[in-house]
Amino acid sequence: MDKRTLRHEMLRILDKDRVLSDDLDVMYYSYDSSFLTKIEKLYPDVVVLPRSTEEVQKIMRFAYEHGIPVTPRGAGTGETGGSVALTGGIVLDLSTWDEIVEVDVANMQVIVRPGVIHADLNDYLARYNLFFPPDPGSSKMCTIGGMVANNASGLRAVKYGCTEQYVLGLEVVLPDGEVITTGGMKSKAIKNVSGLNLTKLMVGSEGVLGVITKIRLRCWPKPKARGIVMAVFPALDDAPATVLDVYQAGILPSGIEILDQSAIRAVNQFKPEIALPDAEAILLFEVDGNPASVEWEGTTIAEICRRRATQVEWATDPQRMASLWEGRSVTATAAARVRPDGSRVFAGEDISVPLSRVAETLRAIRGLGQKYGIPVVNYGHIGDGNVHTAPVIDPENQAEVEKVKQLVHDIHLLAIELEGSTTGEHGVGAVRRGYAELEHGQAVGIMRAIKNTLDPKGIMNPGKLF
Amino acid sequence: MDKRTLRHEMLRILDKDRVLSDDLDVMYYSYDSSFLTKIEKLYPDVVVLPRSTEEVQKIMRFAYEHGIPVTPRGAGTGETGGSVALTGGIVLDLSTWDEIVEVDVANMQVIVRPGVIHADLNDYLARYNLFFPPDPGSSKMCTIGGMVANNASGLRAVKYGCTEQYVLGLEVVLPDGEVITTGGMKSKAIKNVSGLNLTKLMVGSEGVLGVITKIRLRCWPKPKARGIVMAVFPALDDAPATVLDVYQAGILPSGIEILDQSAIRAVNQFKPEIALPDAEAILLFEVDGNPASVEWEGTTIAEICRRRATQVEWATDPQRMASLWEGRSVTATAAARVRPDGSRVFAGEDISVPLSRVAETLRAIRGLGQKYGIPVVNYGHIGDGNVHTAPVIDPENQAEVEKVKQLVHDIHLLAIELEGSTTGEHGVGAVRRGYAELEHGQAVGIMRAIKNTLDPKGIMNPGKLF
Repeated sequence: MDKRTLRHEMLRILDKDRVLSDDLDVMYYSYDSSFLTKIEKLYPDVVVLPRSTEEVQKIMRFAYEHGIPVTPRGAGTGETGGSVALTGGIVLDLSTWDEIVEVDVANMQVIVRPGVIHADLNDYLARYNLFFPPDPGSSKMCTIGGMVANNASGLRAVKYGCTEQYVLGLEVVLPDGEVITTGGMKSKAIKNVSGLNLTKLMVGSEGVLGVITKIRLRCWPKPKARGIVMAVFPALDDAPATVLDVYQAGILPSGIEILDQSAIRAVNQFKPEIALPDAEAILLFEVDGNPASVEWEGTTIAEICRRRATQVEWATDPQRMASLWEGRSVTATAAARVRPDGSRVFAGEDISVPLSRVAETLRAIRGLGQKYGIPVVNYGHIGDGNVHTAPVIDPENQAEVEKVKQLVHDIHLLAIELEGSTTGEHGVGAVRRGYAELEHGQAVGIMRAIKNTLDPKGIMNPGKLF
Repeated sequence: MDKRTLRHEMLRILDKDRVLSDDLDVMYYSYDSSFLTKIEKLYPDVVVLPRSTEEVQKIMRFAYEHGIPVTPRGAGTGETGGSVALTGGIVLDLSTWDEIVEVDVANMQVIVRPGVIHADLNDYLARYNLFFPPDPGSSKMCTIGGMVANNASGLRAVKYGCTEQYVLGLEVVLPDGEVITTGGMKSKAIKNVSGLNLTKLMVGSEGVLGVITKIRLRCWPKPKARGIVMAVFPALDDAPATVLDVYQAGILPSGIEILDQSAIRAVNQFKPEIALPDAEAILLFEVDGNPASVEWEGTTIAEICRRRATQVEWATDPQRMASLWEGRSVTATAAARVRPDGSRVFAGEDISVPLSRVAETLRAIRGLGQKYGIPVVNYGHIGDGNVHTAPVIDPENQAEVEKVKQLVHDIHLLAIELEGSTTGEHGVGAVRRGYAELEHGQAVGIMRAIKNTLDPKGIMNPGKLF
């Protein structure tokens, strides 16, 4: 179907201001944060902004009838090209559909539409002494719909797990326009083991099975207190060894972050006033809970760190905590500045490996950076083995672009080799689908079979996931 | 295929002592704990006890080729007929395949075969300061394979969630004998968002999609301390109100149990020396964590309870805790004795409702018991709205059997009506499949489509789930 007809048809379903097809409007939707979308032009034919299940149904019925690809999109903060249309068609921008439908305090749950922004939801829930624990770096921009579609997590996954743990039910518009409710049509139960778990199948399915139009989330009581331990280690291997000792002490911190030497140096170069000690690794532990627990866990962690660290600090004062955390907060930005002529590339940025292999992984990535002559900055969620790698190149230099592609491929293979995954939390999207067979073997056949069952025409976010 | 041929074929795959077909041997497999299997005779044609993936594959290939029903079974502690063969064929008894393959302390995970018993696993993990948090009442008997197949939980689901939260990956033999590994073929990562989440689709699928032959579980650091608050409430509504206040104080206890008046009286009749106060409700809160946290949470909960309770006690001494918990421990047994001529019936025993509707639910069940003239004892996991109901009848009295069927049906409808589910943790099995459409509407069509995709001949545990 030609663009003009498609746009015309969308205008029969939605108001004029919610159908975008001007080149300039549409260009915005050719990007997310991925390197892929910086080097390839991937325009949809039309962008629509539905704000009701009925509207989504009408769009899907039309797309299904005519075999038009549909790509759901939240805030576009992804790093995998997951919300970018690879083969034209319709982008469903769900970010303006941002209603918090209901907060059910007694049952500790909240029902939202897909466009609600993560930070806004937690601000809202705070009034009720509740919170939604997953904590992505893009909290102030990313949508809950996007978090569910990608099974996002972030800093607090060590203790609180990923988004999936909190999704109790979903409303999903299937490729043919049919609507289903997972987790029980009318259910507000917290525990429900009736039927196949379609909810969890949908979480992390990256838009290839249907469009998520409503989300029922479990919340948790908001912890009353928080504290941070910072510890500086002269030897890289001391960092995972210390994390293990903390676990062995019966403590599961809400987050454990690592800056390796590359990140420490990047931060000091970017903001010399932060003056991180030049070491092989810095660990930041966040603990939360009731005040007594936070004090006990913080002092215990500090004591454990002192076995190996050259410098340890434990803080509960908000200003001091912010200052200890500052190095971690600026790492992503600092990474981008390690070369005056360079930009950070979001690719190979999200591997996860077993905790026992984190030091080996960081060393191997450093070696790969040297092999290809590309500066690489490493940081991430060491508590669950999720390493964020920032290669920095001149994106205008084609030779560097080719080299970084090789580097990223090697990082992905390294992750699989070290009993990890190519993606701990960012997802597969368009950029990691080539590793599906290597990671999952025969299981990919079953994933494809399920996809074909739900989406026989292959219109839902084609070219993603596998 | 006739029994004799089937047995002969199984003997070509497995040693003689792992193929059972004598009437007496097979009779044992016609039961689980459900009422259904007490009133119907449901014999398999043959029982096999495989102890390797290859053996399961051979059995499945044979069954697939000949269209023979296969019912996987753990310890048979289920309450839904889920592991009982409804239409003959093969029962796969996986309970003797009980190897703990690997404990990976640094990555806090354990790999087990399906037959490992829950309590044994936790005894084993305790050596490494780890534990697998879900805590079913049948801990000393039930298998991890059964827990995964049913997405079991138990007392600690309030804080620790259900089994699914801990399953990182599975090896599954599909109906046609193909083997897949979910969660990454070689992966030992804690975080992995690559591909469709087949792991969580398999959890709770009650054997209708394939046979679980290996399980990779996440563990948690074993908490160092534990405590119990008991509180006695003159009015039923005070119980859920108190639970809500506890959540609002930022506390998520590891468990919150309720005994309503029916349970209190049943316990006192069964063991007068326990001498529970005659009240409308007793709550038991269990808190765990570090010693400082446990002290803080216990005293805070006790303080909150005192607003409404007539009697409150907080204990950390193991003996005193056991004594406070005794009423709860004997409830199931006590329920069975409320009538000298009666037996407890496991049916309608596992509804879950929103916390805000627990009091209403307990009252309505009491009313239904009166309507049908059947004594009913209620207890359960109030923290997550999971109510266990024990009707007590004379199972030899056909009129009572018919009445209890009606009662159970009404309890199931009540759960759906009150925005809950017919099953919080025990599963659907053969006994609750009739409610699938009512609970899930159109979503059942998608469940069936997925089932047909993975099991086109319908041989996996037929007649279960939907």
